[in-house]
Amino acid sequence: MSASSQDVLTQLDATSTQPFPNSKRVYITGTRPDIRVPMREISLSETVLENGVHEINPPVTVYDSSGPYTDPNVNIDVHQGVPEVRRGWIEERDDTEILSKVSSLYGQQRQTDPNLRSLRFSHLRPPRRAKAGRNVTQMHYARQGIITPEMEFIAIRENQRLHDSEHQHPGESFGAAIPKIITPEFVRDEVARGRAIIPANINHPELEPMIIGRNFLVKINANIGNSATTSSIEEEVEKMVWSIRWGGDTVMDLSTGKNIHETREWILRNSPVPIGTVPIYQALEKVDGKAEELTWALFRDTLIEQAEQGVDYFTIHAGVRLPYVPLTAKRLTGIVSRGGSIMAKWCLAHHEDSFLYTHFEEICEIMKAYDVSFSLGDGLRPGSIADANDEAQFAELETLGELTKIAWEHDVQTMIEGPGHVPMQLIRENMDKQLKECDEAPFYTLGPLITDISPGYDHISSSIGAAMIGWYGCAMLCYVTPKEHLGLPNKHDVREGIIAYKIAAHAADLAKGHPNAQVRDNAISKARFEFRWADQFNLGLDPLRAIEYHDETLPKDSAKTAHFCSMCGPHFCAMKITQDVREYAEQKGIIDVNVAVESGLKEKAKEFKKQGSEIYHKI
Amino acid sequence: MSASSQDVLTQLDATSTQPFPNSKRVYITGTRPDIRVPMREISLSETVLENGVHEINPPVTVYDSSGPYTDPNVNIDVHQGVPEVRRGWIEERDDTEILSKVSSLYGQQRQTDPNLRSLRFSHLRPPRRAKAGRNVTQMHYARQGIITPEMEFIAIRENQRLHDSEHQHPGESFGAAIPKIITPEFVRDEVARGRAIIPANINHPELEPMIIGRNFLVKINANIGNSATTSSIEEEVEKMVWSIRWGGDTVMDLSTGKNIHETREWILRNSPVPIGTVPIYQALEKVDGKAEELTWALFRDTLIEQAEQGVDYFTIHAGVRLPYVPLTAKRLTGIVSRGGSIMAKWCLAHHEDSFLYTHFEEICEIMKAYDVSFSLGDGLRPGSIADANDEAQFAELETLGELTKIAWEHDVQTMIEGPGHVPMQLIRENMDKQLKECDEAPFYTLGPLITDISPGYDHISSSIGAAMIGWYGCAMLCYVTPKEHLGLPNKHDVREGIIAYKIAAHAADLAKGHPNAQVRDNAISKARFEFRWADQFNLGLDPLRAIEYHDETLPKDSAKTAHFCSMCGPHFCAMKITQDVREYAEQKGIIDVNVAVESGLKEKAKEFKKQGSEIYHKI
Repeated sequence: MSASSQDVLTQLDATSTQPFPNSKRVYITGTRPDIRVPMREISLSETVLENGVHEINPPVTVYDSSGPYTDPNVNIDVHQGVPEVRRGWIEERDDTEILSKVSSLYGQQRQTDPNLRSLRFSHLRPPRRAKAGRNVTQMHYARQGIITPEMEFIAIRENQRLHDSEHQHPGESFGAAIPKIITPEFVRDEVARGRAIIPANINHPELEPMIIGRNFLVKINANIGNSATTSSIEEEVEKMVWSIRWGGDTVMDLSTGKNIHETREWILRNSPVPIGTVPIYQALEKVDGKAEELTWALFRDTLIEQAEQGVDYFTIHAGVRLPYVPLTAKRLTGIVSRGGSIMAKWCLAHHEDSFLYTHFEEICEIMKAYDVSFSLGDGLRPGSIADANDEAQFAELETLGELTKIAWEHDVQTMIEGPGHVPMQLIRENMDKQLKECDEAPFYTLGPLITDISPGYDHISSSIGAAMIGWYGCAMLCYVTPKEHLGLPNKHDVREGIIAYKIAAHAADLAKGHPNAQVRDNAISKARFEFRWADQFNLGLDPLRAIEYHDETLPKDSAKTAHFCSMCGPHFCAMKITQDVREYAEQKGIIDVNVAVESGLKEKAKEFKKQGSEIYHKI
Repeated sequence: MSASSQDVLTQLDATSTQPFPNSKRVYITGTRPDIRVPMREISLSETVLENGVHEINPPVTVYDSSGPYTDPNVNIDVHQGVPEVRRGWIEERDDTEILSKVSSLYGQQRQTDPNLRSLRFSHLRPPRRAKAGRNVTQMHYARQGIITPEMEFIAIRENQRLHDSEHQHPGESFGAAIPKIITPEFVRDEVARGRAIIPANINHPELEPMIIGRNFLVKINANIGNSATTSSIEEEVEKMVWSIRWGGDTVMDLSTGKNIHETREWILRNSPVPIGTVPIYQALEKVDGKAEELTWALFRDTLIEQAEQGVDYFTIHAGVRLPYVPLTAKRLTGIVSRGGSIMAKWCLAHHEDSFLYTHFEEICEIMKAYDVSFSLGDGLRPGSIADANDEAQFAELETLGELTKIAWEHDVQTMIEGPGHVPMQLIRENMDKQLKECDEAPFYTLGPLITDISPGYDHISSSIGAAMIGWYGCAMLCYVTPKEHLGLPNKHDVREGIIAYKIAAHAADLAKGHPNAQVRDNAISKARFEFRWADQFNLGLDPLRAIEYHDETLPKDSAKTAHFCSMCGPHFCAMKITQDVREYAEQKGIIDVNVAVESGLKEKAKEFKKQGSEIYHKI
């Protein structure tokens, strides 16, 4: 690649940054002016009653992961990166220091290699690290009783503005304890307990804080990253912006191809969401793909390299222990995790437990100097229905439980990764065992896919498993795209995968009874019932797709106020018929069926016929 | 429309009839030569072991709903219709008679109207009806202890050929009792008990029999049908063929536009799967959309008209009783079922229970003269999360339970329709209550959608609910397409909706532990693990989509045998790494982890390094 830095990324695709129709990014200010919590406000049209009165429909405010990209007041320049909203908070804690240069040897090489100048992000900051003897993790602060600005930010962000909280079904929460209102103190307490994490590296001040834990909204992760066969820096930054537009709460950069270091820098400087990586991928590139040549020293340097760039969480496959490798021998699909297979190969070659396991406490020391969170990888996750919930998988999970407790001794934030491919009847066991073994540390699963036979549609089969495990208590769902098992996803696939997972996550919020989760459902259903088509589109997870599909058969503007769609045509819409029933009941104050039948309906029938039997008047 | 009959449909689109790659339609013959049960056999390539030995992978046989369209040996002519495979069985029972003309007055008009000649199916058969005093339902035969050819056909069809039944997780079946092998006697017994139905009108001899019940494979229905704003006869026949190609087990013709009678005739004569309708739609057209003008006489004529054409099941909203209508008054989205709203309008206008309810026994008399099955409609199903499981919905369900028992007194086969929009935590209650109220009659649900906020993606949010309720015991899942709530689906949407529902149905079969359900998952996973790409594509639910997606990034033929894909690139595939572990374990007969570690792995480590640390040799 020989492009200059200017050429790497001149501007983002307008389709990635245009605000959604009738939506604007708004901010709620916390107890101090620099806590400005973003949300997306969707304006709705009025309901016109039959008596001519206009009924106002209040705007609906939804969680917004899209960052400043959808805010027309923010000047976006990918060469500068997005605003450093956390900088002041990190500085005022006065427990970190700015280093004169990056600590990683590899990082130093990359920064000084003149051949890479054209690829390099042009406004590199010197890295920040905890002062000697200090621990800068959000968990550490939480355990000291400190409510950080990050925690207050999150509390505001998790509370959706209230509109009609009265109309919500009670949830079934499987032991979760979701309060009616999320307070900063509740956030602190959950983080202190280890039941939630705030991935927030001190070298990622661009981050808008978010939380992962089962007493909060279920989050989703989108994976991006190049591979040796496809993709470039431009595409990866564009994919990140695209991912958060549709609702990605975190993004993992899984690059395994060229220029991983530089790609990551561009992504981080432009990312308002936490970025996760699997450092072993890059480490393997450094030894030309020879897993057995990996060493602790090399891996350690890679961790520090990435921590100083600002990566918020690391997937570390420290649970792949030598004794577990033979347990995969009888599997139908062996080891399917890339990281897991690398570590299994290493363990076999050296006939000992990996440096990830034997040096785990040293890894904790690095993590707490930058506040990088653990995402303890499930290297032995099942890659097929046949291999679900087997001895290898659960042996590793038990080890991840032990490692969680070690990480917590260092106040290092920790979540646990989970499968994979699991038939529906075995999903619950995964969740229950994870909570038990890992003492309620947040679970972060890939799907699971509930069948193996859906290549091309694995976003669907996995969103089924994801919705279910989210309901049972999984805190974050790693998306799967339609290209899973087939190839590297493009932007279209990323959008499909994210929306499928937003559905799963939201359905889980509803099922657990997350306060106000149902507000958006109720608002869209009211719009649907009242034929406010634009509102129905705009309240959906993908307004543009809804409009496109509607307009395929009824493109005219007049159809946007029509009391029917092309599904049933003008004379057949059920929604048209029921309004009068409601009005009548309101007038008469009907409570009891018998009262309605005895007293009201005879009169109603008469009146109804008199009016020409058109019972749909209100709208 | 002025086209001649020849113009109505000259030929089907080749994309609707082309066999899938490496698939052929095969037939298993039963106890008599005219019981020829179709299946689709997928041929697989051999696994080439590293020692050069070729290991044969037996073909996988899957359930095939596509009819003769995918059989190159059958000459398809949509003007003739498909072969009458049931004709001999119906005739030999000698309990029916051929009428000289159709009984319905409306049907007579349509058949003699010269203006309709060009639209009419050209090979109309005279209708068949039960002889006076005879009952020709499969339930009646079953209760007499008779195993019909239809039942034997179904028993063979439900048993998938066995390949590796040993490798399957036990299911969790919520009270279902699925035997290891489905026998004709088991089919008979389930039908006699009312726990399953065989929709099979005596005027639909083209039908390849299938069964709907929770101790059988979960089925899916695809809806087609024109509306006043779009579509034509050509498109509807094409959509039916397209629907069964992708896996629709039954098809409902929900036409509400022009020429409903003629459209239905074309569909039936060309359909090897049961066709369902909602007769009230057509009845309403006959009174120009004025619900209050509907009468029992008119409706009765419509039932007979459709029964004599060969419709296999009727959705009848007989549970929408007058006293329940006011219960919908406080709902967020009132009544959303088209049939439900029509009947509610009628009830209010007349201030009495509908003719569907008051004439229910007379309807049963018609049903049993042709063996039309009831699909008792849920006219008061919830149209939003807010309205789920409310008093209106459950009041109607209780009435449907009463009506089921009346239908059973007439030996009329009956299933029950269900919602709709239901959050995950309330799905189970729907299933349990339906089984209780309706004494285990099969449940047939629309989704349910587990959130309202996914317009454009409702096939996904509803397939989540469908998978779950299928697991809990739902017998048939009515598909939802991406166009739900937005417009009439096109062919692309139909395919998307069907595949989403095949995933849900298959996942439910796996979860319930349906015998051999896992065979296909195991076969595709083995192919995936062994990089037999073509086999992986061909074993999937949509081979063409899988190929298309794979080829987007790696179009060359050589990529079809490559041991990687564009997701991870050639050096990063986890699947490449584990084969050696398995081989080693097989050689040493490792059973116990400790044994493996103590005895084997030191030796292994040595050997491994000697071989250059490339542990992936086998393939």
